[in-house]
Amino acid sequence: MSLDPKVASRLKRTSDGLVPAVVQQYDTGEVLMLAWMDDEALHRTLTTGRATYWSRSRSSYWVKGDTSGHVQHVKSVALDCDGDTILLKVDQVGAACHTGDRTCFDADQLTVASLPS
Amino acid sequence: MSLDPKVASRLKRTSDGLVPAVVQQYDTGEVLMLAWMDDEALHRTLTTGRATYWSRSRSSYWVKGDTSGHVQHVKSVALDCDGDTILLKVDQVGAACHTGDRTCFDADQLTVASLPS
Repeated sequence: MSLDPKVASRLKRTSDGLVPAVVQQYDTGEVLMLAWMDDEALHRTLTTGRATYWSRSRSSYWVKGDTSGHVQHVKSVALDCDGDTILLKVDQVGAACHTGDRTCFDADQLTVASLPS
Repeated sequence: MSLDPKVASRLKRTSDGLVPAVVQQYDTGEVLMLAWMDDEALHRTLTTGRATYWSRSRSSYWVKGDTSGHVQHVKSVALDCDGDTILLKVDQVGAACHTGDRTCFDADQLTVASLPS
């Protein structure tokens, strides 16, 4: 079993064979994290309903929450207009970030100089 | 003028020198699109308040809305825990997608097999 060829044919991958996946909490709209999928990770995500990624640092598949318990139950999956980004809406159990923060974007806000103060 | 060295030192770039930027409508939470920034695009975004990207296909900077009028006014910019993803909250004028859709993720929903029907 592998990814549906009709889906695979629409994917545009990086030179590493990966597609970035934006992960969003389905009800609050929070952007939780960004991870990477190859065809097999997307196939597993679509068929198991558990968010599954390719870890670039560990070079292995990674089912979110398998070690932390911070599971992502998949609610919907969409490709963008170019087929080069995936949007995953999930129900996140606990913290999405390995730091313990709810999202990976909570800690490092940059200053936008032109905003009215 | 270039990107603040304190910010630049926290960025982790792809082999092409780029960082993916997730672009979200600041009030509704819609994920609008994903684009790419190098240091200079991030610098311009932070200093002008107008979302500015690096176009991988055209190999040039791209101020969102300059040709379409579909401007993105930047509300906030954050780095993720690893410094390898940017989250841009914007106020999107009109459609974010070049197809005319509000977001780039409106048109191509995939089937998640394990979801209850």
